[in-house]
Amino acid sequence: MQQNYPTAERRARLTEVLTQLPESERVDAILVSNLVNVRYLTGFTGSNGSVIVWSDVADRGDDAVATDGRYTAQIGEQAPDLLAVIDRDTPPALLSFAADVRATAGAPGLRLGVEAHTMTIAGFAALRTVADERGVELVPLTDTVERLREVKDAGEVDSITSACAIADDALAALIDRGGIAPGRTEREVARDLEWEMFARGADAIAFETIVAAGANSAIPHHRPTDAALQVSDLVKMDFGAVRGGYHSDMTRTFVLGEPHDWQREIYDIVEAAQRAGREALIAGADLAAVDAAARTVIADAGYGQYYVHGLGHGVGLQIHERPGIGAAASGTLPDGATVTVEPGIYLPGRGGVRIEDTLVVTDARPRLLTTTPKAFRVL
Amino acid sequence: MQQNYPTAERRARLTEVLTQLPESERVDAILVSNLVNVRYLTGFTGSNGSVIVWSDVADRGDDAVATDGRYTAQIGEQAPDLLAVIDRDTPPALLSFAADVRATAGAPGLRLGVEAHTMTIAGFAALRTVADERGVELVPLTDTVERLREVKDAGEVDSITSACAIADDALAALIDRGGIAPGRTEREVARDLEWEMFARGADAIAFETIVAAGANSAIPHHRPTDAALQVSDLVKMDFGAVRGGYHSDMTRTFVLGEPHDWQREIYDIVEAAQRAGREALIAGADLAAVDAAARTVIADAGYGQYYVHGLGHGVGLQIHERPGIGAAASGTLPDGATVTVEPGIYLPGRGGVRIEDTLVVTDARPRLLTTTPKAFRVL
Repeated sequence: MQQNYPTAERRARLTEVLTQLPESERVDAILVSNLVNVRYLTGFTGSNGSVIVWSDVADRGDDAVATDGRYTAQIGEQAPDLLAVIDRDTPPALLSFAADVRATAGAPGLRLGVEAHTMTIAGFAALRTVADERGVELVPLTDTVERLREVKDAGEVDSITSACAIADDALAALIDRGGIAPGRTEREVARDLEWEMFARGADAIAFETIVAAGANSAIPHHRPTDAALQVSDLVKMDFGAVRGGYHSDMTRTFVLGEPHDWQREIYDIVEAAQRAGREALIAGADLAAVDAAARTVIADAGYGQYYVHGLGHGVGLQIHERPGIGAAASGTLPDGATVTVEPGIYLPGRGGVRIEDTLVVTDARPRLLTTTPKAFRVL
Repeated sequence: MQQNYPTAERRARLTEVLTQLPESERVDAILVSNLVNVRYLTGFTGSNGSVIVWSDVADRGDDAVATDGRYTAQIGEQAPDLLAVIDRDTPPALLSFAADVRATAGAPGLRLGVEAHTMTIAGFAALRTVADERGVELVPLTDTVERLREVKDAGEVDSITSACAIADDALAALIDRGGIAPGRTEREVARDLEWEMFARGADAIAFETIVAAGANSAIPHHRPTDAALQVSDLVKMDFGAVRGGYHSDMTRTFVLGEPHDWQREIYDIVEAAQRAGREALIAGADLAAVDAAARTVIADAGYGQYYVHGLGHGVGLQIHERPGIGAAASGTLPDGATVTVEPGIYLPGRGGVRIEDTLVVTDARPRLLTTTPKAFRVL
């Protein structure tokens, strides 16, 4: 699926952000080498590439993208509005390009931002060699584009909504045809669920599908095994689809016939905690307070030690992105962010329950994108 | 699929490598934070983790792995022979652990290697703060574990062989049932091929499946579209399976009825170049010379400018790994490496041909793992 996302607008927003950086981080341009960010800013989806975006609007005509010879045709199609530099080693190639632009304009000297959170020590050392030759000063910046990506534009929300609908429909179809039943293995159930997603237009699965039955459900990130589902097992399923590059993320937990009282008990607590988390999810809310809203419900019920992870995370071009919603998180929830809410209780050796939705943050109630019912359900 | 790989042997080999580093890179231990390397050294497959391996055999009992609370149970199962440190921020946690080990042994002071090619500038800066507090000296190292990974052990070759067989069988099944035919879209063919791989036990697909028909076949890394295949199209398919964490990689190019002379011509050249590349593939060969063996065939036929990428790459836990086989590569081919040989000719706007195998390097003829025939074939 080739979609037209407003990449020029995104680059313009980035320029605006660059002009507002504190003095010590002020740059003439930013060299973006994180491939997900390159895709966000240009539409280019190849496996090797960088982009340079200028902070002065007058220089924006010289925004350029670089990749290697395998992608010459593709970059022309996906990023037709950008200058293309063909060179295997894209960061130094774009640095030289930018230094040339400056020299040609009679304005030598260049402060160039680089992505400190994704550029490696070795990549930085190699780039610095070229920078020194060309009189370019490198300025490490952190999460500059990732912060922009927190707030989704309309096309992004559409894609995530489609991905969530694919996951909802796939799960419903699998349940309808009795695909989650005693005797079937975790692996079989996971494969079938993935196939149902592909059949409904998923470009890919969002991450390794989790199907965890019985005691395995107590492992938060369990990989499906050849173990067969059994009567009275908790079955925890955490999965998602990718559509147009964007991910969905949902967890549901069921019981296979004849539930035990303890299963019902922890389910009800997690369900209440998840509801409390969703109710706290409002634009401007403190991230740690949103986490606390759900965590308190579990702690007050006496299960705090069995809830071993954060409440949620942003979802978009990556399955895990900003903002992180956890006890140690700082900052607030932006209007228009797409995030998960996913508390859980995991009783080692017995079983676990997690309930997770993907939602869009608004200034009122969040918009629920994963619509599979969350009421306790026996299959 | 849970396999038992000889992770303790791998860590012992790493220790040996560490003791042989040049004086300037000599370290007491290495902190491995690249997740693929963590998996290689420990068996742990979670999404957050690091491992520390000591260079002195006497300290090896204190090799330790770290991850966060989601994976407490999993790490105990997958890496039972290692100390486990549970902490979300694994590199500083292991650094502190190692400093404690040293202090307890009455041997304070620690030179700790870090992975310069994967650790980010920001990660390094954060780690350095803790290192300074604990009197630990950080030493950037490059590709230390990746070099070990070049030579596959028997279990790895078994997994890659299985992954290659899955891909071979899937393609044969798809062809047998007429799945590659005029009127079907690139996307449909790609999905069907992936499904055939899953049906044969693939844990995942190795990378985004390429099905490129007609003029699209001239794009080396084309993504499948809704364009329908047509009579006389070249159809290029580049795909692979994952089995037990290990990848396969194969490209075949077919013609759909009534081939043109130019298609046959470039096919024959690429086939000859690919054969020359395979014949040059022998333990100890210069990497650039292997590339040249194939490239010369294409250049001599007058198509040099239409072959825009390297000849091949290592395949293993990652789809692209060391060694790279290209014109600018340095070094030699190790005995026991698993690599691809994949020359191509791409005529913009018309079409392209690539033929690719995965092979194991030996001191005689390489062992071919992808066995689908390579003779010119009209479907």
